[in-house]
Amino acid sequence: MSDQKKSAQTQGLPNIQTSFSDWYNEIIYQAELADQAPVRGCIVIRPYGYALWEEIKKVLDKKIKDTGHENAQFPLLIPESFLKREAEHIEGFAPELAVVTHAGGKKLEEPLVVRPTSETIIHYMFAQWIRSWRDLPLKINQWANVVRWEMRSRPFLRTTEFWWQEGHTAHETKQEALHEAQTMLLEYIDLAENYLAIPIIAGKKSESEKFAGADITFTFEGLMQDGKALQMGTSHMISQQFAHAFNMKYQDRSGKEAYPYLTSWGATTRLIGALIMTHGDQKGLIMPPRVAPIQVIIIPIYTKSMPQEEVDTAAFALKERLEKNFRVKIDNDTHVTPGSKFYKWELKGVPLRIEVGPRDIEQQVAVLTSRVNGAKQTVAWQDLEHTIESTLQEIQSTLFQRARERRAAQWHKSAKLSEFSHDLETKGGFYQTGWCRSLLCEEQLKQYKATTRCLIEERQFLNCFYCDQESPSDVIIAKAY
Amino acid sequence: MSDQKKSAQTQGLPNIQTSFSDWYNEIIYQAELADQAPVRGCIVIRPYGYALWEEIKKVLDKKIKDTGHENAQFPLLIPESFLKREAEHIEGFAPELAVVTHAGGKKLEEPLVVRPTSETIIHYMFAQWIRSWRDLPLKINQWANVVRWEMRSRPFLRTTEFWWQEGHTAHETKQEALHEAQTMLLEYIDLAENYLAIPIIAGKKSESEKFAGADITFTFEGLMQDGKALQMGTSHMISQQFAHAFNMKYQDRSGKEAYPYLTSWGATTRLIGALIMTHGDQKGLIMPPRVAPIQVIIIPIYTKSMPQEEVDTAAFALKERLEKNFRVKIDNDTHVTPGSKFYKWELKGVPLRIEVGPRDIEQQVAVLTSRVNGAKQTVAWQDLEHTIESTLQEIQSTLFQRARERRAAQWHKSAKLSEFSHDLETKGGFYQTGWCRSLLCEEQLKQYKATTRCLIEERQFLNCFYCDQESPSDVIIAKAY
Repeated sequence: MSDQKKSAQTQGLPNIQTSFSDWYNEIIYQAELADQAPVRGCIVIRPYGYALWEEIKKVLDKKIKDTGHENAQFPLLIPESFLKREAEHIEGFAPELAVVTHAGGKKLEEPLVVRPTSETIIHYMFAQWIRSWRDLPLKINQWANVVRWEMRSRPFLRTTEFWWQEGHTAHETKQEALHEAQTMLLEYIDLAENYLAIPIIAGKKSESEKFAGADITFTFEGLMQDGKALQMGTSHMISQQFAHAFNMKYQDRSGKEAYPYLTSWGATTRLIGALIMTHGDQKGLIMPPRVAPIQVIIIPIYTKSMPQEEVDTAAFALKERLEKNFRVKIDNDTHVTPGSKFYKWELKGVPLRIEVGPRDIEQQVAVLTSRVNGAKQTVAWQDLEHTIESTLQEIQSTLFQRARERRAAQWHKSAKLSEFSHDLETKGGFYQTGWCRSLLCEEQLKQYKATTRCLIEERQFLNCFYCDQESPSDVIIAKAY
Repeated sequence: MSDQKKSAQTQGLPNIQTSFSDWYNEIIYQAELADQAPVRGCIVIRPYGYALWEEIKKVLDKKIKDTGHENAQFPLLIPESFLKREAEHIEGFAPELAVVTHAGGKKLEEPLVVRPTSETIIHYMFAQWIRSWRDLPLKINQWANVVRWEMRSRPFLRTTEFWWQEGHTAHETKQEALHEAQTMLLEYIDLAENYLAIPIIAGKKSESEKFAGADITFTFEGLMQDGKALQMGTSHMISQQFAHAFNMKYQDRSGKEAYPYLTSWGATTRLIGALIMTHGDQKGLIMPPRVAPIQVIIIPIYTKSMPQEEVDTAAFALKERLEKNFRVKIDNDTHVTPGSKFYKWELKGVPLRIEVGPRDIEQQVAVLTSRVNGAKQTVAWQDLEHTIESTLQEIQSTLFQRARERRAAQWHKSAKLSEFSHDLETKGGFYQTGWCRSLLCEEQLKQYKATTRCLIEERQFLNCFYCDQESPSDVIIAKAY
């Protein structure tokens, strides 16, 4: 153990306690999740990072389909005028747009914007498709890349191009739309907590933190190890302005003209950043088993007491057997010592390691090592599936439990900004307090580089953290990514 | 039957024999595969079309992974200078580029091109990753959208934005790279013939038809019902110029400096167009069962002899049961007659229809109707899985067989252009002949709006179709999309 720690330090993984931000950048690079691209603010997602994204997608795509949505694809390039149809929307997105002005060797008559989000073009199509109440609800999802010109980018957390799913739906009633926005929020929470093992807090965004063009924005937020909040995704009740701006008229059940109620909701490759920052340790990543691209790494141990082929035969037989139930990889590189392999796969956060050496083969056992706590078990071959299954489940819940305890320790309750502003600025964490909902009081947080993260239903504090006026319910305040 | 035909005509599906091109555009729209987008040359892929693409992706993604490739994601936007590094490449793509000149409210110092293909940016990254022969082979695939400014677009066949996978690999030896390019060609052929049920012909492209920047381009081509060829995908041995242009130097096994050999290969949403044009008939689409988004449509038949709920209960029980093995949908819309439903799902090309009416329920049977030939079978409930499975297999092979016979009838062999030019121009079809490989002779085809499609290994003709000089092997000539 101490050898490996030393190794980690000599390889220069920055100290996770004192240099969290450097640790984050370095682990992404060293674990080969992503690489910087030669385009400002963009990343390349490398195979190991992309395999993680594919696992997350698989879970989320199933949730989206099981709740009655269908996938579709809309154009990347959107006429600039579309974005201008809804005033708040263009105001919010204008500074971030990448614009195609030339194509096919000519200047375009109307510039095309690379989609920063697809409400406008999807709503334009909705208007063609929704003629009668029988066309409702219309529940569409798109997996896509989007571009928002970022001044300060960080891999996975904030990149010029990112990858996401964006759901867009239309409904007959406001209640139905609200129910949809809340349903998808709940699906996101299930994804975060039960797959990514990240405890979250969910609620509504304040007026100033809402999506540009939404009436209500629901958010779910995690608390990272450095005490900063991370918005992990959002679900919106879209303003009726959109339905009018895109002339989404239809005939309702009573034969009258009506406009549908709209929602949109999205989660992005930022979820990968959340996972890294929630579970990583000084040795590197820790992948929650349910989304780990590799759940079990098999390392054959070659010694003089048995021919290498014989060890490999046993190790590959084991791999073939375990592959039926788990995502398994074997590292049989003969140019590298077992110690270096342990280090490498710990860095990459594979939850479970299996060593297969001559003695293990003779005794028909394998040695399992957990990435979370280094605990070792010697397991008879016939019990392997069962033990791996239960150990992976244990690791999954340990990760969630650990993150929940960490968050509990950083979740403070305090009536007055003056009492918690110092800790908020220097130590981070969630601060639950009361708020009168005025922008004036909210703006006091700026000097501590903090923001309101979400409004929650609980009401422990009766008065505002700043002005002392009545608070309808509590708010969570934090510094955030 | 005749009722439905009439219905098809009244709904205005153009005659597939005499107005193939109109039929094609109209069936895409009526079957809700895609819709025109409000952006020049772009389409929206609607849920039914996208579900088909997801089935195709599933098959192809598995093939790509099973042959040892890993998925990754590279940026959408590429510095313009990257494309200029390889002379043939930029010459080929310059007229088709969409260019981002402004972003974040400012003019960019260097314009960014929306990727028309990703060789340049991927090769730039390859140069960072390949240091030694141990980093080879490097086998990467990307599922992505690309943009090529098209003057004349057609849904799925030629659109400004399209969706594809692009594989990019690097190898130590030329032989290995050649083997890779051929392996992926074979995987594509298997996808086309055994999943899409489209018989193809494969071979090398001529010098003038090659990918801009390739040494060798392998192609696989289908023959559509109107006698035009369709290039369905390509696999390239990329020119060593790329390795040099991107300084992809590495240390080889002997410690010397070397440059890798590169391949790339891609297949696009065009495959959907190929499927439509190969199998469709006057009633609409026919989906090959192995990729059909819906393999079985269940239609409950409501009559006065049994309460509607009772029919629905039986129909939904059937659906739940069949869903374990097949992709099944039930159409229980009560506002629409069974006849209209038959028409609708025939139009959408669902291979198998099951009717469940009161009499069927009493007798515990179901009536199966094949989309291909309208053949009906009455099947006892306990035999359903077995009969559906075998009927779907039968439909799959009938479609392939039918397409193969059609192609055989349109595959002509002729020694001299003068003998076949008239038929080539007026009737279409494949023309196998000899060719000396000179550009001069190839250009004779232009006046008949035809091109060389691929060079094949067979050598039935010893001399050129035009100049009579020696032909090393045969060529396939056709008009093409």
